[in-house]
Amino acid sequence: MRRPRAVRHPEMPSLATIDEGGVTSALGFTASGVHAGFYEGNDRLDCALVSADVPCPCAALFTRNAFSAAPVDVSRDHLRRVSFGFVRAVLINSGNANALTGENGLEVARRSASLASGELGCREDEVLVASTGIMGSRPPVEPFERGVPLACRRAARDGGHDAARAILTSGAHPKEAAVSYRSTDAAYRGCTFTVGGMAKGPEMLLVLTTDAPLSPALAYRALEESASASFNKVIVDAGSSTNDSCFLLASGYGAKPGKPIREGTQAFREFSEALKEVSGRLARCIASDEQCVSCLITVHVVGAFDEADADRVARSVAHSLVVRSTVAGRHANWSHIVSSIGYADALFMRERVSVDVMGVPVLRRGALCPFDEQRLLREAGDREIVIRVDLGAGGAQTTYWTGDLPPG
Amino acid sequence: MRRPRAVRHPEMPSLATIDEGGVTSALGFTASGVHAGFYEGNDRLDCALVSADVPCPCAALFTRNAFSAAPVDVSRDHLRRVSFGFVRAVLINSGNANALTGENGLEVARRSASLASGELGCREDEVLVASTGIMGSRPPVEPFERGVPLACRRAARDGGHDAARAILTSGAHPKEAAVSYRSTDAAYRGCTFTVGGMAKGPEMLLVLTTDAPLSPALAYRALEESASASFNKVIVDAGSSTNDSCFLLASGYGAKPGKPIREGTQAFREFSEALKEVSGRLARCIASDEQCVSCLITVHVVGAFDEADADRVARSVAHSLVVRSTVAGRHANWSHIVSSIGYADALFMRERVSVDVMGVPVLRRGALCPFDEQRLLREAGDREIVIRVDLGAGGAQTTYWTGDLPPG
Repeated sequence: MRRPRAVRHPEMPSLATIDEGGVTSALGFTASGVHAGFYEGNDRLDCALVSADVPCPCAALFTRNAFSAAPVDVSRDHLRRVSFGFVRAVLINSGNANALTGENGLEVARRSASLASGELGCREDEVLVASTGIMGSRPPVEPFERGVPLACRRAARDGGHDAARAILTSGAHPKEAAVSYRSTDAAYRGCTFTVGGMAKGPEMLLVLTTDAPLSPALAYRALEESASASFNKVIVDAGSSTNDSCFLLASGYGAKPGKPIREGTQAFREFSEALKEVSGRLARCIASDEQCVSCLITVHVVGAFDEADADRVARSVAHSLVVRSTVAGRHANWSHIVSSIGYADALFMRERVSVDVMGVPVLRRGALCPFDEQRLLREAGDREIVIRVDLGAGGAQTTYWTGDLPPG
Repeated sequence: MRRPRAVRHPEMPSLATIDEGGVTSALGFTASGVHAGFYEGNDRLDCALVSADVPCPCAALFTRNAFSAAPVDVSRDHLRRVSFGFVRAVLINSGNANALTGENGLEVARRSASLASGELGCREDEVLVASTGIMGSRPPVEPFERGVPLACRRAARDGGHDAARAILTSGAHPKEAAVSYRSTDAAYRGCTFTVGGMAKGPEMLLVLTTDAPLSPALAYRALEESASASFNKVIVDAGSSTNDSCFLLASGYGAKPGKPIREGTQAFREFSEALKEVSGRLARCIASDEQCVSCLITVHVVGAFDEADADRVARSVAHSLVVRSTVAGRHANWSHIVSSIGYADALFMRERVSVDVMGVPVLRRGALCPFDEQRLLREAGDREIVIRVDLGAGGAQTTYWTGDLPPG
């Protein structure tokens, strides 16, 4: 007897993690990270470039914050406000967010793109820009004039790590990930595709690259879908920052030219899986590697009446100051989790809700379960606490990530 | 020429603050705070009673949390789920919240009301109950058996301070306030009315008392209105706790019997003003006196398109972890305030928004203003930071309060 899933689709290819992989793991990209001078008085890397060998399909997601930063506004303009198109490079600086900087900020952001396009020999609107760092501080032009030519000259196949370091602000570790897979779609027999990327938080910046062949519009569709299950579900502060930007560039170098992946095909499904995997890994890195975070908190909500309710409850738990600080303090007062479910404004009967922390029952039939706090804390370990909420009200589910808030 | 307001209404009476006033400042009430034993190993006051000399009109507001604590459910039942009626006493314990405690918790809450009604010689449903403290811990009966008779015997006109101390958990200082005024309504000529109360946070418990003559339904209307402009606008954690409860008792002893205040009269307007004043003072105490709060943050939003937008923006600013911790750290990075306005999902044009901190312009025409951070921080002082946001989009406004989040 055939397995049912084999009837519908070919099996999904397994994803191979690329050791020390990142934004240049996919074919067709170079990158660099240089010291431009946004941070004064040391040689800290503060300017990153990710460059495609030729103009390539790109999709972008930008912050919904009404006070979007100047580089966000410039990049939106360069993509003609449809959020996808063809680009040659993404230029990112850290140390100055160029946010709340008015007309002067826009001029500096345009100037930085123009410097890069001059070096790369492309049009100015083929360069996207992003910034991270201090908001509201007048952005200096000199570091761009010094750093951008250097970054363009140094861009190399092995420059991904430098780029990942150059976009950091508060986060302790560079955040990179890459996977590859051998396509099981007959149209791409023998092709191996790679998806990689780099990220930073808490203001989210992500650059994802792939050598799978995608049209700009399809890249956008895949990016939006993977974002909604990954970095859009990371709770750091209450909302999106002025600078949040996410880019996906698709060189197509992994397949023969002229064969872009179509929607609804096995090739698109397997690409989407790979993109979600990389996005998910980077999202977890962002949630667990903030300056003051000691422990990742994963919130699974299942059994919700609908997706909006699952979101409400997971956001409510992940947002709760009290939940995050009691987890940090190891007070083990899990009742705060239940309280945050209670004010989430979701449909459920409280007697049917169950809550488990690290697999240990915490709430049943409206009452906190007796449990051995010390045992639970030992099982929780240092690196991740998994909270599972079953609302007993339907079939919708979601997962959010946040970090604890240690004292001091 | 007459002053226009004199044509419409008599002038509002001035409110006189009662020094060291509290929940027993109004005529017709006694109170006590005793050590019942919810906190073990010391003589800390942990059981409070506020008692009316005779059954008196009462209104109550309870948490909207789906996991409402047992005493909340019992008090709701005692008021026959309409949130107003006649009661003799409010009994409050600290040290155990009796939340998430299932059927056992309900039994203990009912038993505590029954103990008080036995002592006071009234019906069980004429006693309302509230609890605060640790959630999810099985509530002991013994402290009630020991403490309730004691609290009933000790209830006295000068017991307000003890009661205010007995309801504290984390807050450092007892929170009390009272005002009196001479009615300018011709129907109550010569009458002086008093409004007083006590409160605790962060899980909000408030008991308000007055000797103004109100029907239970009108007491409810006044309470709801004053709550919406005071403690409902205090942001501590993200939502309402399992135990939030607010009571208003109106003895009527300040006027001749049989003359309850009617809606729409000068007497009702002046009572509402006094109630709002006391509620506002207690709300500010709750926001500024949490265990880890060093400074009150007041957020005024004006110029909003509608009230919902004003609320969204004020809540967004007051909720922001980054705003609250940068205020605590005196980083003076006011740009986070602007960012939190930006993601509040309100209608405005960003060029028209202005933000001021302690009267110093921070944002104009979409850009952060240059300002002397040190000067602003000195002006901000230690006890209160006032943030004013003008959205330039309409005429609605609101005020919220929160506390900063100092490190460690």
